[in-house]
Amino acid sequence: VRHDELADQNCAIARSTAVLGERWVWVILRQAFTGTRRFDDFQKTVGLSRNMLADRLSHLVDHDILRREQYAETPRPLFEYRLTDKGKALFPSLLALMRWGEEWTDLPDGPPVEVVHDSCGQVTHATVVCSECGEALDARHTHGRPAAPSYVRAQ
Amino acid sequence: VRHDELADQNCAIARSTAVLGERWVWVILRQAFTGTRRFDDFQKTVGLSRNMLADRLSHLVDHDILRREQYAETPRPLFEYRLTDKGKALFPSLLALMRWGEEWTDLPDGPPVEVVHDSCGQVTHATVVCSECGEALDARHTHGRPAAPSYVRAQ
Repeated sequence: VRHDELADQNCAIARSTAVLGERWVWVILRQAFTGTRRFDDFQKTVGLSRNMLADRLSHLVDHDILRREQYAETPRPLFEYRLTDKGKALFPSLLALMRWGEEWTDLPDGPPVEVVHDSCGQVTHATVVCSECGEALDARHTHGRPAAPSYVRAQ
Repeated sequence: VRHDELADQNCAIARSTAVLGERWVWVILRQAFTGTRRFDDFQKTVGLSRNMLADRLSHLVDHDILRREQYAETPRPLFEYRLTDKGKALFPSLLALMRWGEEWTDLPDGPPVEVVHDSCGQVTHATVVCSECGEALDARHTHGRPAAPSYVRAQ
């Protein structure tokens, strides 16, 4: 019930986290982005019980973040889970969370993984910038305001 | 127990979401970033029961994302909740989630809020770019690899 309330709010944050505020969801997404597709592979890498993992995968399928596709018929139907466009669009958020985690969660031996940006060949750190001027965004130099109706319509 | 397992993983995503994968946490953070500090104001704007809100605020204080400060002594001790540096560092992730929510969660009348970047004066959309070359990051043009020990040490 609580979750439905979140999903019904007229707020992009509330509605996102109604879907993504489930425990383990981001770890499943981490795996999906690194190419994991099959149930057993998710189980090995995520480390959840089969029941719980099945529940979380269904949740992501229900919200159109993963899609479930059959890849074998015999000896029994087998399915894999692939990111949809809606799911792929979470990559920037995943990187932003990852960077925060690297900087603030006291990883015992430092970040275990580095992300390489193939386009430039460098080890990259996700940086959240203004779409208009390219400067890094922080709370001190931004403010929210009700969206102008014309602006809303133009979306 | 499940949450402790997440927090113990050697992974920035798992450790972030051990803290941030609680329901309502991001809506509370949304309010904190817009200047809400007092319990009653959080309650009005977040729309949670007092018990649940108190629980979530404690969770964020326990994880050093909010700090609890007394602002009045009479007629009874009154406290407010302020973002710590660790909490403020979540702003880019909040903006990235907000943008995803705007684009993918079918807000009934479009995004209700727009974010103005005071430095350039424009309505801004959070964009996640490479720290090295400034290009927008997506999953197709990046790959992860185990961090080199020297790189880890340099963090």
